[in-house]
Amino acid sequence: MATDLSPGSNLESALETKRKLLEDFLDRHLPPEDREPRTLHQAMRYSVLSGGKRIRPLLTLLVAEAVGGKVEESLPVAAAFECIHAYSLIHDDLPCMDDDDLRRGRATNHKVYGEAMAVLAGDALLTFAFELVAEGVADPRKASAVLLDMAHFAGASGMVGGQAIDIESDGAEPDPKQLEKIHRLKTQALITASARAGVLVVGSDDETLRCVTSYGEKVGLAFQIMDDLLDEEGTTDQLGKTAGKDRTQKKLTFPRVHGRAESRARAGTLAREAKEALHPLGTSARLLLSLADYVVERKR
Amino acid sequence: MATDLSPGSNLESALETKRKLLEDFLDRHLPPEDREPRTLHQAMRYSVLSGGKRIRPLLTLLVAEAVGGKVEESLPVAAAFECIHAYSLIHDDLPCMDDDDLRRGRATNHKVYGEAMAVLAGDALLTFAFELVAEGVADPRKASAVLLDMAHFAGASGMVGGQAIDIESDGAEPDPKQLEKIHRLKTQALITASARAGVLVVGSDDETLRCVTSYGEKVGLAFQIMDDLLDEEGTTDQLGKTAGKDRTQKKLTFPRVHGRAESRARAGTLAREAKEALHPLGTSARLLLSLADYVVERKR
Repeated sequence: MATDLSPGSNLESALETKRKLLEDFLDRHLPPEDREPRTLHQAMRYSVLSGGKRIRPLLTLLVAEAVGGKVEESLPVAAAFECIHAYSLIHDDLPCMDDDDLRRGRATNHKVYGEAMAVLAGDALLTFAFELVAEGVADPRKASAVLLDMAHFAGASGMVGGQAIDIESDGAEPDPKQLEKIHRLKTQALITASARAGVLVVGSDDETLRCVTSYGEKVGLAFQIMDDLLDEEGTTDQLGKTAGKDRTQKKLTFPRVHGRAESRARAGTLAREAKEALHPLGTSARLLLSLADYVVERKR
Repeated sequence: MATDLSPGSNLESALETKRKLLEDFLDRHLPPEDREPRTLHQAMRYSVLSGGKRIRPLLTLLVAEAVGGKVEESLPVAAAFECIHAYSLIHDDLPCMDDDDLRRGRATNHKVYGEAMAVLAGDALLTFAFELVAEGVADPRKASAVLLDMAHFAGASGMVGGQAIDIESDGAEPDPKQLEKIHRLKTQALITASARAGVLVVGSDDETLRCVTSYGEKVGLAFQIMDDLLDEEGTTDQLGKTAGKDRTQKKLTFPRVHGRAESRARAGTLAREAKEALHPLGTSARLLLSLADYVVERKR
């Protein structure tokens, strides 16, 4: 059964409420545009407060809620993941990286603020993410656990490592192992970490962390497969970023290595497995189950 | 009286012992070059393990020692500051920033590994710094305090903010207020933070933190004034980086705004004030007093 994503549906209204909470929080906590250094602050806010699906912070918030946490506790952590995601997009879009002009339907950060300021805005957002957690999570034990996990999955062993392998693989022959490695590090790692953080900030048991990690890994990979498919099938208008870019840059993508049909099937299987992984959490995981479907049914 | 920096002197041998400890620690903890993603790991190690004065980590280690801490506790924190410093140099040297080819007597990171990998190596080192602290400081209360302070002084309110103002001020008319602001944020902030971290990781009282903060601020500003002077007076060979760059790029520097003589006098005054700030710490601060002299007497 397809997830009901129509306006007013259960999942969509829950996601919208949480997106609003998150965006209000980010707006209140990001440094203000009228304080020096103004351009830096403007560049930071430009990329964070520009919409987007907010999958990572939603995962943190929904997981924390499912394991009995309060949204006020998980909000700074969720916001931190969105800042890390935003920084990674700014740096990925740089001319020396993927060289993209369009993101979320707007000019990319360096197109508006110049390359130097874009590098710095990314650096500042990454740093700010750690500040948000260290400041916003009252229990130092939980703060420290979240910070360690976040750094591990965002750095050389995770997202940045994936981006490094991705860049070095541009134009490489289709290779399923290399593809899996790139996806695992570049996208899956931070999505998994954002789900895990929802457990760590509440301080639940290891068994819960294991289930949520498995869910995060499967949702994370499904998300990237859909991203690859949408890049081939969607339009620039629909996506808010340049469509067909992966093919032009000869990126290793799922459809390129496995074909579109198999890729779509794999995403579906992953969503089903993600939901199964949450079985031990019972009905409290209801919205997370819907979110797994949403990830593979999305059109942008 | 000039500080004795000759080989075998008290300060120099203490600094050398600590530099060795730090470099061994970094070498053991940075991801190995033979593990994937190899180029990223190589690029990270290239910039961190390339010598340098190690002022920031030395401050953390010497302050922690002066307030009764153990070097094993402060070592991960000291290493984290050196990683943040190394990341900032990599990004500063990028063509879109200061566009420099030479650093510590070697080709800059992007000259060796390309711009994309240099951006990522910087990102990975910044992330790694937070991981080192979250992992290496056993007491979560202390870890959290260090992480918050470190993020605050390294980000938009500190070092990155200073770099943003610096870039926007290239070619500006000499303006003492603007100069002071750039120096306070760009260099003084992280140097102050590295000294403060030595207190925070040990968990000393607020009065000690106040003294050490004052010391760090004065040493930090003196350090940057000397950097400005050395850029004008030193040779590229001596400095290991392109000399005279500030003038070519019309940077706001101390000698440009206040003249060389006044700059030198100011650095001397700051070193004296830095030492006075540590008076309450008594003889345990002995090496920190010598370090303040070293900062204004250094030739590179």
